[in-house]
Amino acid sequence: MAEDIPDLPSGPLDIYRKKASFNWKDMMRFLDGDEIIAFKQHVFTTLENDPLFARQPGEDIPLEQMREITFRRCKQLFKYKFLTQDEIMQNPFKLTTLNDCLGMYDWSLGAKYNLNRGLYGATVANTGSSRHKKFVQDIENMMAFGCFALTELSHGSNTRAMRTTATYDPSTQEFVINSPDFEAAKFWVGNLGKSATHACLFAQLYTPDGNCHGLHSFVVQVRDPKTLLPMPGVMVGDIGKKLGHNGLDNGFAMFHNVRIPRENLLNRTGDVSPDGRYISPFQDPNKRFGASLGALSAGRVGITRMALVNLKLALTVAVRFSATRRQFGPREDEEIPVLEYQLQQWRLIPYLAAMYALEIFTKSFIMNYVEFQLGLMMKDKSDRQAELGREIHAISCASKPLGSWIAQRSIQECREACGGHGFLAMNRLGEMRNDNDPNCTYEGDNNVLLQQTSNYLLSMLQQTQQGKGKIESPLETVNFLKDMSSILQSKFTAASVEECMNSAVPLAAYKWLVCFLLGESQEKLLREKSSGLGDFEARNNSQVYYCRSLAIAYIEHMVLQRFHDMVEDEQTPAGLRSVLGRLCALYGLWSITNHMAILYQGGYFSGRQPVDFIQTAILTLCGQLKDDAVALVDVVAPPDFILHSPIGKADGELYKNLWSAVMQGKNVLERPSWWAEFCSDKPVVGSLRAKL
Amino acid sequence: MAEDIPDLPSGPLDIYRKKASFNWKDMMRFLDGDEIIAFKQHVFTTLENDPLFARQPGEDIPLEQMREITFRRCKQLFKYKFLTQDEIMQNPFKLTTLNDCLGMYDWSLGAKYNLNRGLYGATVANTGSSRHKKFVQDIENMMAFGCFALTELSHGSNTRAMRTTATYDPSTQEFVINSPDFEAAKFWVGNLGKSATHACLFAQLYTPDGNCHGLHSFVVQVRDPKTLLPMPGVMVGDIGKKLGHNGLDNGFAMFHNVRIPRENLLNRTGDVSPDGRYISPFQDPNKRFGASLGALSAGRVGITRMALVNLKLALTVAVRFSATRRQFGPREDEEIPVLEYQLQQWRLIPYLAAMYALEIFTKSFIMNYVEFQLGLMMKDKSDRQAELGREIHAISCASKPLGSWIAQRSIQECREACGGHGFLAMNRLGEMRNDNDPNCTYEGDNNVLLQQTSNYLLSMLQQTQQGKGKIESPLETVNFLKDMSSILQSKFTAASVEECMNSAVPLAAYKWLVCFLLGESQEKLLREKSSGLGDFEARNNSQVYYCRSLAIAYIEHMVLQRFHDMVEDEQTPAGLRSVLGRLCALYGLWSITNHMAILYQGGYFSGRQPVDFIQTAILTLCGQLKDDAVALVDVVAPPDFILHSPIGKADGELYKNLWSAVMQGKNVLERPSWWAEFCSDKPVVGSLRAKL
Repeated sequence: MAEDIPDLPSGPLDIYRKKASFNWKDMMRFLDGDEIIAFKQHVFTTLENDPLFARQPGEDIPLEQMREITFRRCKQLFKYKFLTQDEIMQNPFKLTTLNDCLGMYDWSLGAKYNLNRGLYGATVANTGSSRHKKFVQDIENMMAFGCFALTELSHGSNTRAMRTTATYDPSTQEFVINSPDFEAAKFWVGNLGKSATHACLFAQLYTPDGNCHGLHSFVVQVRDPKTLLPMPGVMVGDIGKKLGHNGLDNGFAMFHNVRIPRENLLNRTGDVSPDGRYISPFQDPNKRFGASLGALSAGRVGITRMALVNLKLALTVAVRFSATRRQFGPREDEEIPVLEYQLQQWRLIPYLAAMYALEIFTKSFIMNYVEFQLGLMMKDKSDRQAELGREIHAISCASKPLGSWIAQRSIQECREACGGHGFLAMNRLGEMRNDNDPNCTYEGDNNVLLQQTSNYLLSMLQQTQQGKGKIESPLETVNFLKDMSSILQSKFTAASVEECMNSAVPLAAYKWLVCFLLGESQEKLLREKSSGLGDFEARNNSQVYYCRSLAIAYIEHMVLQRFHDMVEDEQTPAGLRSVLGRLCALYGLWSITNHMAILYQGGYFSGRQPVDFIQTAILTLCGQLKDDAVALVDVVAPPDFILHSPIGKADGELYKNLWSAVMQGKNVLERPSWWAEFCSDKPVVGSLRAKL
Repeated sequence: MAEDIPDLPSGPLDIYRKKASFNWKDMMRFLDGDEIIAFKQHVFTTLENDPLFARQPGEDIPLEQMREITFRRCKQLFKYKFLTQDEIMQNPFKLTTLNDCLGMYDWSLGAKYNLNRGLYGATVANTGSSRHKKFVQDIENMMAFGCFALTELSHGSNTRAMRTTATYDPSTQEFVINSPDFEAAKFWVGNLGKSATHACLFAQLYTPDGNCHGLHSFVVQVRDPKTLLPMPGVMVGDIGKKLGHNGLDNGFAMFHNVRIPRENLLNRTGDVSPDGRYISPFQDPNKRFGASLGALSAGRVGITRMALVNLKLALTVAVRFSATRRQFGPREDEEIPVLEYQLQQWRLIPYLAAMYALEIFTKSFIMNYVEFQLGLMMKDKSDRQAELGREIHAISCASKPLGSWIAQRSIQECREACGGHGFLAMNRLGEMRNDNDPNCTYEGDNNVLLQQTSNYLLSMLQQTQQGKGKIESPLETVNFLKDMSSILQSKFTAASVEECMNSAVPLAAYKWLVCFLLGESQEKLLREKSSGLGDFEARNNSQVYYCRSLAIAYIEHMVLQRFHDMVEDEQTPAGLRSVLGRLCALYGLWSITNHMAILYQGGYFSGRQPVDFIQTAILTLCGQLKDDAVALVDVVAPPDFILHSPIGKADGELYKNLWSAVMQGKNVLERPSWWAEFCSDKPVVGSLRAKL
């Protein structure tokens, strides 16, 4: 198997590849393992060999056509059926890998495929019961096409405030769906614009007694699968062009007395009897609400990974470009690759370190999530399972912001680091940026989500302070808080730049930082409350500089901790330990620089040495890693066909590839169709000039 | 005149407008003056009344058509002739205002118009001589269409390395233009893709004796104005789709023995006699080079302003959205505008402060530049004129990075702060981001440009240290460095949050910061050199954390100083002083937070008070300014027709406007043309599945 990783084509990148301190194929095998490597190659090759997946660099495709081709490619994925349920159970990471591969090709396709099968299909399967199996089957065979309809025009974050209603009518044993007004139209729903036939629709459930039982989900047919025409009473359409993801049809829908059978209520968390009584397995309506939205938690775990994939794409382009683009040099007659400039290294290489940190983090975190899901399937009612759920919620509410923001900033830096050529659509950095963008706001706005994480940490602290047990969690991400008071006594002690070049230094700083911010946040909250504010206001006024920073520091600590542990692990191959150690140290040091003012403020740092050491360590590590940079992206880069960026091709023939792609452009050398607009009908200058 | 500012429509924004602490029309009059206000209104109204300028929200237009409509609108501008040369001389700021107005409408149009008249026309006029007048005249009447052809496929920043040649042939008294290979093809040239007939082309000038005299510019006809077909020997085409600016046709050109008359050499800085001798008015070839590129310096001044215009557009949208979007609230039945959240204030209001800071800065700096240009026109050979040139170069090389990056980050924050609706193309935040993006890299990559600024400061310091006079400059931006040693002794002394809420506090911190970074940068350079590195390497290794930070601190200090002076100025109306003072203090405090680690490192800060005070001051100022936020954007917002963003409309009817725009979308309710792809021809699941 191992010999199966194909060599990369020879060319201008050889200079750097030869200088690499490690074997890139060994790294790939270590990170992915043979099975995943083979699976990836299979998916990539399949797409490359199918003409339906062919693309032109920088092509300009009308919206309607983008949606058509995406739909047709999605249909083709049904034929390929890359994964069976058995294969997923055997190696759950293959599902992530498939999503990675599709996303690297085109996120619209990945999204279209997953919204139907993953989000709609899984939600129906997990929150419904045996009577809903046919809906899932219809999805499997593409007899139906699904979407997940939660958000409304005027509500996104505040899910409880959704206003679509489902009123039970015992006379016909149906629910009647209504949108009270257009502000309550379902909006932003992926697949709903043009293609969905069925929606997993969230609505306020009313029983005949006039009581509202809160938000519930229903299967509602929105279009006739035979014609794709809307069902009576449904006004459904496309919300139009977006900044990115334009292969996906996001839509809206308004409902006017749309009747669905009683059985279409997804009844895992609550049901209505034929005569109209509400039956709930839960006592606590809050728990019911939490459970009915539980299906959403997988999304954030997945988005963290999606952001990482974008990081991989963008860095591959920017690093290969920087290794082959030459500009200026020590002598008039010799130009050096821009990667040789310390400034360029400092702009890109820390993101390369972040990419490896997130690779290691997402991999392990996804397996944690798989464990949690197995618990759900096994109906594990243990305290540990419940605690694991809370912890995973807290982690994912911070890992999505961390990942999506790092990707956002990194792609922007990559685009600028490639100069003008980064602004050319064919090089794909714009598409990456546009397609990564919604990661920052959907499935919860990043800033809003971070509050969930800090709430978790604050409640942990409070529990202990109230004597309700010590701070511990299944994944051990909060266990170090047990030593909070001694950690808060610690100081930065590194005595040299060399000492700082080990991830233990930023890791210790992070432990102090999380403890400090946790204490400060709690105090701030108390201060706000004692000044007479209610809980709502007190929390709002404790986010900036306190709870928000706390959540970010917590997740950065966790990511660093897992990377650090992996570097220290004896099973990590000796030949990779050194480069991974440098990446880990760089990630930690670079991340902690965002918090240096707090480290001084709280007395962890003093004097000028900490900053001097850390800055020098960062630049030294960047310098040490610059010869590894090309090999480090080779490990994660998809084949050229998938990457689809002339300046990022594996052969490093920057200008040949770019020029050849430009020459393939549509009408590239033709005079414009509107040439007569210039050549005849000359403007009479000032003829329309008005006096002021 | 003053009564002429129309009232804004009543609606949900009234709540905030009534709470504003100042009169927005007074602010507009103070900032712009009656003449500019009237001119702006005239331009805006003219465009709105002309059907050629009509647009659909979020429209999806093919590339070719975007170029056509942009060209036709550009032609219409010739007919409107908004400004005569006399009017510009009378009030030079009108030219900036016209560019602001066109940019607010569409940057592609502004760019197309300016590249032809401003860049091509002005360069020919300023670097040629009387024999080139006809070229300028042809531009005025649109008999020709021009472009500025400097960059090549493989060279951008390193302008000296351009490889296109112009070899003089005395036998025919012509220059022969050649591109040695495609890596030397002119590339990225705006207007060259489809429409330019003439290029101001930069090439290495060779005389018959085989000597190269460096880069010179020539007027080269690339297309026949009668047909728009390429001239013989010219291969010219379109580089394709870009991340933004797609109404503009950026192009490439390769030349194969293209002959142009000797007279087409733009000969201000060097000429060739009919028999082929090179004649130069300069002794020093470096000076010649500098002068021949001098025409570029206006660009950076202009780009700083363009970035500010983008800031105005994005903040108008995001602030109006935040004031009308309600989500959550203290009680179940009451939701509050998201602008009421401290976190949202902290995300947006500092950018509002930066917008006012840059408004005041660019206005005064553009007038400094006008003064410099008048000196050029008057052939002022004084030392002051030369020094002014150096200082303006240093300022513009930092103000472009500052402005373009603030705009970049601000637009991104605005887009995220508007949640999903910010990701909808029709709301225009994506277009703003995409169109602002090249500001970060063209006319010099931001990071590369910043070196020019730090070089200027370092040479100033060195001069004084060598006893060659004290530190002084015509615009006085470096004069405070005279007191460097006493400034470096100063400390943060504010004793309360209240005291920090005055811009004097961050201003003093900035003076210390610039002095500290200047000293550190000089030392770092010396250290690198004494370790044996050459000048090139030593400079490269002194950018990160040193020279780069120095240049940023210098320009931030200057922007803050000018804002501070304006607030202190007795002529500033009393009714505006308070809100301007808050904005100024907020801008200063918020900017300085990026440098807090250095303030601690160098001992300007100590203990926890400085950070506590500054953070509290920032949040307090945000809270004080939130009721002014809507009025503050009303001052800078263009009319709805120009802003072209449903969620940013002046009436604040967020959902009505958004819904109505969605309903106007093309084929919004139609089933897709490819419906049969779903309804018949169902995929056989797994039919193409291969065994691994």
